[in-house]
Amino acid sequence: MPKKIGRYTLKMTKKTNIEEFCSVVGKKEGDGPIGKHFDKIFEDSYLGQSSWEKAEAQLQLEAVQGVLKKANLDSSQINYIFAGDLLNQCISSTFGLMDLGIPFLGQYGACSTMAQTLAMAAIMVDSGAAQRCIAVTSSHFCSAERQFRFPLDYGGQRSPSAQWTATASGSLILSSENGKSHVEHVTIGRITDLGIKDQANMGAAMAPAAARTLKDFFEDTSTSPADYDLILTGDLGEIGKKLLLELLQKDGIDISGNHDDCGLMIYDRNNQDVHAGGSGCGCSASILCSVILKKLKNKELRNILFVATGALMSLTSAQQGESIPGIAHLINIREFS
Amino acid sequence: MPKKIGRYTLKMTKKTNIEEFCSVVGKKEGDGPIGKHFDKIFEDSYLGQSSWEKAEAQLQLEAVQGVLKKANLDSSQINYIFAGDLLNQCISSTFGLMDLGIPFLGQYGACSTMAQTLAMAAIMVDSGAAQRCIAVTSSHFCSAERQFRFPLDYGGQRSPSAQWTATASGSLILSSENGKSHVEHVTIGRITDLGIKDQANMGAAMAPAAARTLKDFFEDTSTSPADYDLILTGDLGEIGKKLLLELLQKDGIDISGNHDDCGLMIYDRNNQDVHAGGSGCGCSASILCSVILKKLKNKELRNILFVATGALMSLTSAQQGESIPGIAHLINIREFS
Repeated sequence: MPKKIGRYTLKMTKKTNIEEFCSVVGKKEGDGPIGKHFDKIFEDSYLGQSSWEKAEAQLQLEAVQGVLKKANLDSSQINYIFAGDLLNQCISSTFGLMDLGIPFLGQYGACSTMAQTLAMAAIMVDSGAAQRCIAVTSSHFCSAERQFRFPLDYGGQRSPSAQWTATASGSLILSSENGKSHVEHVTIGRITDLGIKDQANMGAAMAPAAARTLKDFFEDTSTSPADYDLILTGDLGEIGKKLLLELLQKDGIDISGNHDDCGLMIYDRNNQDVHAGGSGCGCSASILCSVILKKLKNKELRNILFVATGALMSLTSAQQGESIPGIAHLINIREFS
Repeated sequence: MPKKIGRYTLKMTKKTNIEEFCSVVGKKEGDGPIGKHFDKIFEDSYLGQSSWEKAEAQLQLEAVQGVLKKANLDSSQINYIFAGDLLNQCISSTFGLMDLGIPFLGQYGACSTMAQTLAMAAIMVDSGAAQRCIAVTSSHFCSAERQFRFPLDYGGQRSPSAQWTATASGSLILSSENGKSHVEHVTIGRITDLGIKDQANMGAAMAPAAARTLKDFFEDTSTSPADYDLILTGDLGEIGKKLLLELLQKDGIDISGNHDDCGLMIYDRNNQDVHAGGSGCGCSASILCSVILKKLKNKELRNILFVATGALMSLTSAQQGESIPGIAHLINIREFS
């Protein structure tokens, strides 16, 4: 069962294994540098559905059906599914997954949701409450744009600091039995707000939360950045990444040697016109559940920190002039030694 | 640590205690039959804030500050807070609770959220991952009306089957140490959709989920309705209640002798013009965290089932002609013998 380490970190004491993982993405993500690692690429942004919201629900269902198939499991063998997304009332998750018949626990952590679902799944498996859980999340460029920004047809101009919401979903199965890598530690974040109000600069709004959670983790575990092969943040993008490195350096923590950001990995920023990088729950989910977990499986990576970050705002809070509070949850994943 | 009982139920094996609870409500709820049991009643629907959304965030903060005060605890003594609400991107929870500095896990289960936050808190405490967790949720009539239905100024006419979203918040502290009652079992629900599309008839949309979860629980624990002093559903209202009794009767389960519904308790339906009853996350949360937990504390109740129900729709899904899937999570709470 999970053991408290320091103030904010839990150590999993049994093997909390990543049994399988799956990623499904849209065309633009498939055309990017990680393209060959994704399990499925959809050329049609509607996935054959009648709306982008239904397309996103379908994307999430495809990711779950995909991971079940790869693990050769049936949905009845999953005890709980932890799922969430960016749409109002998380309808991608509920409409996408409702026919599976798996006990459902909706999670909301904005773009930190993949780390949150994974954390909850790990705790359930490690505590013995579940034998197998699925963690899944998604985002879709078109459903997010029209909900949070402008109708796509309007063709609004994007600020250089804006990030591109990935059309993507990532899923994984946490299991008490089989797997090539496992969750070793979990650090749940605290909401952090330094007063950023610019909706087109989410990276800057989320970086302080990532810095805080990383600091909590290093303190709790008495480790340092050099102990990890890779420190992978969710989707801070170009501006958030710089700010994170600066904030940590002020505390004497240097992650510049082994840091990368999912928002900077998913697109070719020189040729794909995404401004400051990728974003959306599906961005970090699909990067984790493709190239990263593959590298852990192949022992190209052995010990990583996955720190997904979320901006906890809504269109209403932004219109009412509120700032953008951020949150970041951290998962330490290791290969089996 | 939590032990699996049957297919869908977890039994808490340590004492997972309800250390304290708190409820804060608006004027209409204070004027209702449960009025004298609430900790705080706000006459001003804005709670001194500049918008109803900020008022709801304040309501949730008041409930958390209230429960901390009653337990004589500081926020630094809480390991995790599980919180959620009905507003887009759960901004009542994030903006209300961000300054507390407690590791934050946003939950989304629509009006089932109080049972979900309580379930997660119980599992964390029982597994040893936490010593103390807070579970909290809220709703506000004015913020919900304008988000899901019409601007209040429009004065739209309400259907007889419609329910009144409660302006209310309920919170409790789950603890491994002190308490007068404890969580004994948790059953996490599966999404259930029988095709109801009428947004003004949420009770009918949620009743099948409540029936399914109750059936799962009775099967898993080999118990029957007569084993419990009270079976309390979330906010099915008049129509949902009738449907629930009918659905269970078809399976040979009769709960008519000891069933009540939070949506039918919170208002005086003869004099308060709320049509089919109350609803909203805060409805079941404030009823549980006032009169019900008081009765367990005083041993007027000894063994109850709390079954909060949620309608997992959004304005967008409704406008796109989708049905309203429901979910219900069950918590079995007992006094200490």
